[in-house]
Amino acid sequence: MSLKILVIGGVALGPKAAARAKRLMPEADITMIDQGTYISYGGCGIPYYVGGDVAQMDGLRTTNAGVVRDEAFFMNNKGVKAICHTRALSINRKDKTVLVENTQTGEQSSMPYDKLVIATGSSPRIPPIPGNDLKNVTSVTCLEAAQAIQQQCAASKINHAVIIGAGFIGLEMAVALADMWGIKVTVIEMMDQVLPAQLCTNYAQMAKHDLEELGVTVLTSESVKELKGDENGAVCQVVTNKRVIDADQVIFSIGVTPNSQIAADAGLLCHPRGGIMVNSHLQTSDPDIYAGGDVIVTRNLISGDFAYLPLGSMANRQGRVIGTNIVGGQATFEGVVGSWCVKLNQMHATGAGLTLRQAKAAGFDAVEVSVEAADKAHFYPDHTNTSLNVVVDKKSQRVLGIQGMSADGSAVKARTDAVAAMLQIGRPTINDLSNLEVCYAPPFASAMDVVNTVGNVADNLVRGQHNVITPDEFVELWDNRAENGYLFVDFRPAAAGKPIEERHPGEYLSLPLEDLRERQGEIPTDRPVALVCNTGTRAYEAQLMLREIGIEAVNSAGGFISLRKRGDDVKF
Amino acid sequence: MSLKILVIGGVALGPKAAARAKRLMPEADITMIDQGTYISYGGCGIPYYVGGDVAQMDGLRTTNAGVVRDEAFFMNNKGVKAICHTRALSINRKDKTVLVENTQTGEQSSMPYDKLVIATGSSPRIPPIPGNDLKNVTSVTCLEAAQAIQQQCAASKINHAVIIGAGFIGLEMAVALADMWGIKVTVIEMMDQVLPAQLCTNYAQMAKHDLEELGVTVLTSESVKELKGDENGAVCQVVTNKRVIDADQVIFSIGVTPNSQIAADAGLLCHPRGGIMVNSHLQTSDPDIYAGGDVIVTRNLISGDFAYLPLGSMANRQGRVIGTNIVGGQATFEGVVGSWCVKLNQMHATGAGLTLRQAKAAGFDAVEVSVEAADKAHFYPDHTNTSLNVVVDKKSQRVLGIQGMSADGSAVKARTDAVAAMLQIGRPTINDLSNLEVCYAPPFASAMDVVNTVGNVADNLVRGQHNVITPDEFVELWDNRAENGYLFVDFRPAAAGKPIEERHPGEYLSLPLEDLRERQGEIPTDRPVALVCNTGTRAYEAQLMLREIGIEAVNSAGGFISLRKRGDDVKF
Repeated sequence: MSLKILVIGGVALGPKAAARAKRLMPEADITMIDQGTYISYGGCGIPYYVGGDVAQMDGLRTTNAGVVRDEAFFMNNKGVKAICHTRALSINRKDKTVLVENTQTGEQSSMPYDKLVIATGSSPRIPPIPGNDLKNVTSVTCLEAAQAIQQQCAASKINHAVIIGAGFIGLEMAVALADMWGIKVTVIEMMDQVLPAQLCTNYAQMAKHDLEELGVTVLTSESVKELKGDENGAVCQVVTNKRVIDADQVIFSIGVTPNSQIAADAGLLCHPRGGIMVNSHLQTSDPDIYAGGDVIVTRNLISGDFAYLPLGSMANRQGRVIGTNIVGGQATFEGVVGSWCVKLNQMHATGAGLTLRQAKAAGFDAVEVSVEAADKAHFYPDHTNTSLNVVVDKKSQRVLGIQGMSADGSAVKARTDAVAAMLQIGRPTINDLSNLEVCYAPPFASAMDVVNTVGNVADNLVRGQHNVITPDEFVELWDNRAENGYLFVDFRPAAAGKPIEERHPGEYLSLPLEDLRERQGEIPTDRPVALVCNTGTRAYEAQLMLREIGIEAVNSAGGFISLRKRGDDVKF
Repeated sequence: MSLKILVIGGVALGPKAAARAKRLMPEADITMIDQGTYISYGGCGIPYYVGGDVAQMDGLRTTNAGVVRDEAFFMNNKGVKAICHTRALSINRKDKTVLVENTQTGEQSSMPYDKLVIATGSSPRIPPIPGNDLKNVTSVTCLEAAQAIQQQCAASKINHAVIIGAGFIGLEMAVALADMWGIKVTVIEMMDQVLPAQLCTNYAQMAKHDLEELGVTVLTSESVKELKGDENGAVCQVVTNKRVIDADQVIFSIGVTPNSQIAADAGLLCHPRGGIMVNSHLQTSDPDIYAGGDVIVTRNLISGDFAYLPLGSMANRQGRVIGTNIVGGQATFEGVVGSWCVKLNQMHATGAGLTLRQAKAAGFDAVEVSVEAADKAHFYPDHTNTSLNVVVDKKSQRVLGIQGMSADGSAVKARTDAVAAMLQIGRPTINDLSNLEVCYAPPFASAMDVVNTVGNVADNLVRGQHNVITPDEFVELWDNRAENGYLFVDFRPAAAGKPIEERHPGEYLSLPLEDLRERQGEIPTDRPVALVCNTGTRAYEAQLMLREIGIEAVNSAGGFISLRKRGDDVKF
């Protein structure tokens, strides 16, 4: 008798696992159930559908040959029996059956399996605040919600949207609504920065500034207390701990929780905070039951900790591993390094591994350093500056994480992916980063690529050679210059620095690097000194020269390019 | 007394090593000599200067702040004494001196050192053929030669240029001359493909086609026997083993040889074919002498063999390692994976690790497989197709190399860099490639990225699941269809396949994948069958379905997208 495989969930991992298993074992009897109307869709594309980049909602559920992936498609093209409107209620592991319910008729039945795949995904978190069930309050993780919002936008029914949570979906939706539809958008984040689990504080400020350039209001360290409704039961105000904001649309994007209750109820090992535990074959504690995608807890390959990483790309790769293993294969999924990327307004942010906060929380003696460098040979036309921030362990010189920010998304993704690949397969050190052999030709990169440069600067930092501060710290010194008495020295060409010196005499000195050896007497020895240039490189050379004459100054990482990306250049 | 460091060579590695050493040890006495007029220039940018992307020759030797890197720059900004027009004649290791000659006056003198850096680079290979010294016969590795050619172009003095050697510089120069100046260009390559040491045969055909689209003539498997001159001693004809070609400019680009004779003469260990041998600290067999860049032989991290990889990026990274170590540091350079990239006409080619030929020569039981996939989510606008070819060892499933080809250079570089990073730090397997955690969001990648896909297809290949042939093989089957009796089945939508079927009845069948289950009876069992679709994916699914009914067919990797990139689609 043929192997009976039942897959619960038909969005990302489920279809992948089912189709892969069928290809490897054509005689297998494979059924995939889903509680919704739509299956096998690209949920990650929702903000791009709302924002108009994807013209039709069906674009998110068609193959690249233009065929809609519905039940008939799965039967004809994949040999998989897909059944929609069918919710799994419970798993009976002794009988090897799943009790299911037709969501349209309420009818219940029992479905047998030899091997079961749990691909139930996740549900958006809804904050437990008054008014969270008002009209025009929603989250956007399913196609129906996406379509509803898109139609509201197209009908000009939204004037002011408030997005609660500055994670990926929150920021993508903010851009979609503000850019495409010109809607007034406010993003509210409880933590002290956007993308708090992903970005260093410096790049979070760049991301915030980039959104503000589009007219989006970003409020951090602010929490929503209540949503107030109008006479029709529709939301009209958002009340935070700091203010009241008028709003006719509220979108929750404060993360998701794994739909693992059905597994826990069946006695499968789950993490105390939710999420099914699996081994590296993506098998649950019952060897006949596999799980993957948004419903599982996996391992962070850098910290060794449990990790919850609900991403469509994870679901796809894990789906293939399950499809292979469920029919007797031996594919493995060892864990995650947590690579990610997001398109903002003009900027693109990326990352992999641990942030400084996460690294410290995991017990590393971590520091971070950031650079600005051209993504192509500087003599080649059309290059952009890439910001890269690396997190390293001081003692072992191990590379723990990287974050990037650039107007050129592909360029910053390339550097991040290379580091992610190293983090996935080994324990890279700063030396590995300095020598990372990325492809080189002038139209693609500098001979010393930005990813090598950030390794070099990290090396200089951990050896105590480079006395570097973050742009946050530099701006704080500048803001408090009346009290701290710092002199700020600018090593860019005079055309850039002199006008600032003229605005701030006695506080700011323009001193092009070429002139430093003869003008070094102008740098005082009796007050603290902070250095800046365009990218941080020239000021580093100046720092070394000043050290020779007994002056120890701090250098602002990323120089004025970083300050400009943060919107802080206007302060000078 | 301060440490006396002497650096021979001032182009790429020399300046980097000197400046780094000075930064780490400000009290060091560092001198850098060079036989030429120009130092610290980006030689890799020469084709872009000739082709007009870099407006001024000095653009190749200025900092990104616009300062020319000459002797004064090195003294003022770097604290390094740079001396041009000074050639090193011999090294006296006992006395620790170098005998040098002023190339303008002929005056000789002796320069002492405590630590010596040999950064003498390489020289272009000149084929030993009659006429190789005629006027307008040159190579383009120095700025003077580049300027001469650029001036000839600007004065419209070149009508037909012949480029001998289809390596990086040859192809970049071909594009520069044909694209910017509209010059008739012929490239002659002795081997049977362009970029023979870098590209798989399939992508070499794509590269050739891409150059032909620009009007460049590419002749492979052809060797130059003689250059003939006119009455003024200028070249006028190129004689090959197959034809005579009129030409008023000839450029040699058949590689370079290391300038290691001075090291060999001093008794330093050198490779029999040239190139200084160094340890992982880039120390020669004399611990007081370091060497790097184009003059050394390093190690291939994948094959373990000796490797000669003269690239500007190598020189820069190695220069930093030498600068660190020469003042007592412990940086290492373990070897190379051989990553590279080149911009052609509309296409960009990239690679890392071993080609199939190289892998077989190194003793691996290697196979390769190629895919075509979108570099962004297929529903996202503006994606391009990336071609990726992976070379794997069948038995160990180890990944040995990757090559890429795409109209989007950054996209294909990103995937190649990620694999290069894995090759550099570990021994990645196919499973690692399938699970490679590259950053994902729809504007950047597909949920199952092309780099994962090529891993998946390699997995299917080595398991015998996917019966795949290269486009070369597919085209050969098509060309010989009268003899071999193959039926070709096209699984794309009928709009794409039907017109071909109508042109070739009985030989070509249009059968959209969706219709296969009901029309499978149309596939004959008594003649061989070859399958094709747009990318290879649908035809793979068809292959599995046909296998169920006892028909074993071959599938053309990369489908019609590959055929189109090769210029072979017009044959159908």
